[in-house]
Amino acid sequence: MLADDMLGATRENAAPAVDECYRAAFAEIDADPNQFLCVVEDGQQIVGTMQLTFIPGLSRHGAKRGQIEAVRIARDRRGGKLGEAMFAWAIGECRAQGCSLVQLTTDKARRDAHRFYDRLGFEPTHVGYKLKI
Amino acid sequence: MLADDMLGATRENAAPAVDECYRAAFAEIDADPNQFLCVVEDGQQIVGTMQLTFIPGLSRHGAKRGQIEAVRIARDRRGGKLGEAMFAWAIGECRAQGCSLVQLTTDKARRDAHRFYDRLGFEPTHVGYKLKI
Repeated sequence: MLADDMLGATRENAAPAVDECYRAAFAEIDADPNQFLCVVEDGQQIVGTMQLTFIPGLSRHGAKRGQIEAVRIARDRRGGKLGEAMFAWAIGECRAQGCSLVQLTTDKARRDAHRFYDRLGFEPTHVGYKLKI
Repeated sequence: MLADDMLGATRENAAPAVDECYRAAFAEIDADPNQFLCVVEDGQQIVGTMQLTFIPGLSRHGAKRGQIEAVRIARDRRGGKLGEAMFAWAIGECRAQGCSLVQLTTDKARRDAHRFYDRLGFEPTHVGYKLKI
């Protein structure tokens, strides 16, 4: 799903033998209690994925943030409200972890995603900067 | 410094007795090996602060991200290249932790910050969404 994406198509390796870099990253995610990599299964098919990161911080009265990254929905399952269900679950999970803010960034090119987040009540108050190092 | 800020002024409690919520948040940050809350000291004065979060992930070939939050510089030390020094250090620290991407969001109202990040080579490719829960 990461590779079957308008931006991911050029930057991932979807060869059948899973690249070792993905295995190593998975092990790191798995070892960190503040990371939660989720998959949504429908029978034998994985139809959605996202990663939650819980970030403690001092600002906003010591608010903990829930950050959502790497949201992907299988191509043949888009438009069927699966995204809404995933976000309802994710926001509940953030609340259960004591977060008072949920945040995410999305590429300026993902217009459909912007409409989706606007509809869920997210506010596009910030600019997301990235620097490759 | 969090309260002495155009946005923080309305959302923090800077009473001399440190509010318990900040102590609890500090303990959580301190206990998480992927969080690094930094302060810059000049003699007895704290002149800068920021928080680094190291986030493992699968996308971009299993790239680890360094995320920077809560950047603040004491009012009387702004314009003196302290921010540049802090970011040079932070980017080096992210590289040392194996990150291949540094990311941050900044409020759309912080025009000075945008010029600063543009100058450092950060690209404003994303929209930063927030949802209070």
